[in-house]
Amino acid sequence: MNNQPILNKYWSSVCRHIDPYVPGEQPKGTKLIKLNTNESPYPPSPRVLEAIRNAASEDLRRYPDPFSDELRKAAADYYGIGLKQIFVGNGSDEILAFCYLAFFNPGERILFPDITYSFYPVYSKLFGIPYKEVALTRDFYVPIREFMTDNHGIIIPNPNAPTGRFLDTDSLLTMVNYNLDCGKVIIVDEAYIDFGGDSLISFINRFPNLLIVHTLSKSRSLAGLRIGLAFGSEGLIEGLFRIKNSFNSYPLDRLAIAGAAEAFRDREYFEETRGKIIRTREWIEKELAKIGFIVIPSKANFLFVAHKNVSAADISSKLREREIYVRHFKKPRIDNYLRISVGSDEEMEFLLKNLREILGAYKG
Amino acid sequence: MNNQPILNKYWSSVCRHIDPYVPGEQPKGTKLIKLNTNESPYPPSPRVLEAIRNAASEDLRRYPDPFSDELRKAAADYYGIGLKQIFVGNGSDEILAFCYLAFFNPGERILFPDITYSFYPVYSKLFGIPYKEVALTRDFYVPIREFMTDNHGIIIPNPNAPTGRFLDTDSLLTMVNYNLDCGKVIIVDEAYIDFGGDSLISFINRFPNLLIVHTLSKSRSLAGLRIGLAFGSEGLIEGLFRIKNSFNSYPLDRLAIAGAAEAFRDREYFEETRGKIIRTREWIEKELAKIGFIVIPSKANFLFVAHKNVSAADISSKLREREIYVRHFKKPRIDNYLRISVGSDEEMEFLLKNLREILGAYKG
Repeated sequence: MNNQPILNKYWSSVCRHIDPYVPGEQPKGTKLIKLNTNESPYPPSPRVLEAIRNAASEDLRRYPDPFSDELRKAAADYYGIGLKQIFVGNGSDEILAFCYLAFFNPGERILFPDITYSFYPVYSKLFGIPYKEVALTRDFYVPIREFMTDNHGIIIPNPNAPTGRFLDTDSLLTMVNYNLDCGKVIIVDEAYIDFGGDSLISFINRFPNLLIVHTLSKSRSLAGLRIGLAFGSEGLIEGLFRIKNSFNSYPLDRLAIAGAAEAFRDREYFEETRGKIIRTREWIEKELAKIGFIVIPSKANFLFVAHKNVSAADISSKLREREIYVRHFKKPRIDNYLRISVGSDEEMEFLLKNLREILGAYKG
Repeated sequence: MNNQPILNKYWSSVCRHIDPYVPGEQPKGTKLIKLNTNESPYPPSPRVLEAIRNAASEDLRRYPDPFSDELRKAAADYYGIGLKQIFVGNGSDEILAFCYLAFFNPGERILFPDITYSFYPVYSKLFGIPYKEVALTRDFYVPIREFMTDNHGIIIPNPNAPTGRFLDTDSLLTMVNYNLDCGKVIIVDEAYIDFGGDSLISFINRFPNLLIVHTLSKSRSLAGLRIGLAFGSEGLIEGLFRIKNSFNSYPLDRLAIAGAAEAFRDREYFEETRGKIIRTREWIEKELAKIGFIVIPSKANFLFVAHKNVSAADISSKLREREIYVRHFKKPRIDNYLRISVGSDEEMEFLLKNLREILGAYKG
């Protein structure tokens, strides 16, 4: 719909000038292998589905709890923190948008990496927050020292997307501590933290400027339910509630609250499925290296890879002919890389078989 | 949580200065009669609940359709308009927030009534859009001529809330037509239109500046599912999509899309339940008049009433002692009025019985 925007005289100045985010394709079809949007190959917990079915009752005629207390309590229990240290939203994207309104000021420049989640610059344009993109190193490391400089806010995803690289806790905390006195908020977007990285949640009591953002879309297999969470000091959380309550009283519906709360209660299923994804990733990393891919070490549920001989654009389009979808970002510095979601072992076997065939044709 | 906001050094300027919306109380309890948030007394259509249960499947691991095509198609069929003339959001509140970003400019003054949905000034403060509140007449009529003046956008709810008064189509269209050439958008918030008013949806082809906003929270008994819709010219709808795609790719989850689409397909249930609410309203209007209430004629699923002898504050607090919740707005001009949602006949009988007892004590 947005390929050729018609300039419309009724649009606001912001609406004319923004450059909307384009999510990964959601092709319709049952046979295809979809490794382009980092969804889980495993279904949600059966207990989550049951909780949702139970919530599909006549109570739907009632508004939901505007504070989503059931969900916030379940998450508080899971992480061992206080109810007032948790905010929930309609996906982590909505929470990130609220963060721009709650913590950043128009005209005051924030920092985030140059290669990262491509929604960050979109929010900046929507809300008039200037930004500086801090260049990753050649090997796609976040240069943490360059965030220890004059700024009015920082967003760092950890693990980073689309690279998958994880930044150690000590480096991050040194940076958070450096920025403590300037009164600006550091947002650590931990969308992919459950796949082997260490969360900073346990440090929110020590750093009142630290906000951690999570999602249930990846490690809890609930992309279709739209649940994000934020963890931070009571002041930061209250700031997010002030914005939410000035935007939409009830961003989470009754079904989402019930299902997401149950997702936190079913620890066993969560541990089992994320463990499988980590093991598949560790195996497929080696297999991809064997057939000539450079693989950036990943702590996420995807791999960021480049082939030594064949271009990412070629591989991507040939995979698509075989109904295998991976993500190719046509952006400077990363246009020869592919981001491949970690699917089930069967999906990965099928991917490898097809990659071998595609690459074999180039040798001949 | 927001009663005594702590000023926090990490909050943005906007976050410090906004005055968040306070939704009607959501008391927990099974016995109470809840007539304070205009929910439907009837459950959602059984077909809707079944559609939701079917959608509670392993597909929840996948992102939803970012364009919610299934729902938009069902609504397009229902209203006989084009797919590109429909936008859907996480409740009509989210759509209204998007409208401020899509169609209004900071520093350019918009108009809305002084007695109306109290979220409008909240959005204005959140997004820096100045506004003028146009005073309703003494009898709570919207003075339509006063919207035919220099402005940069208009919002009028029809029927108005919390008064319930309906503005005739000719008056509204005269105003929309007057404003056609100035290139500004007129938003008609028809949250309560299904209870006897005439919608302006059929005029969106004629007026490219006219945007109609609906919700499934009231007449479709789905307050707990969070579904709003907007109808307008393709240009206006594309503007809303541009903002949505710069804010949150997927505001509607898979369950909400499935349930809401089915709500539009089940016409019979909709006609039956809204018909019952209209009949109950017409009956209770007369009964309330008999016991000394001034009743503003309503085309909504609520009544706006003042008693000739006893203050609204007194009646409200005495009803609450009896576990009956109605809405009392402590605001100038309307602080002697109560907004009472139209419940089931049984709930209304119980209300009347209690009102007679409460008012009887004042006579004695």
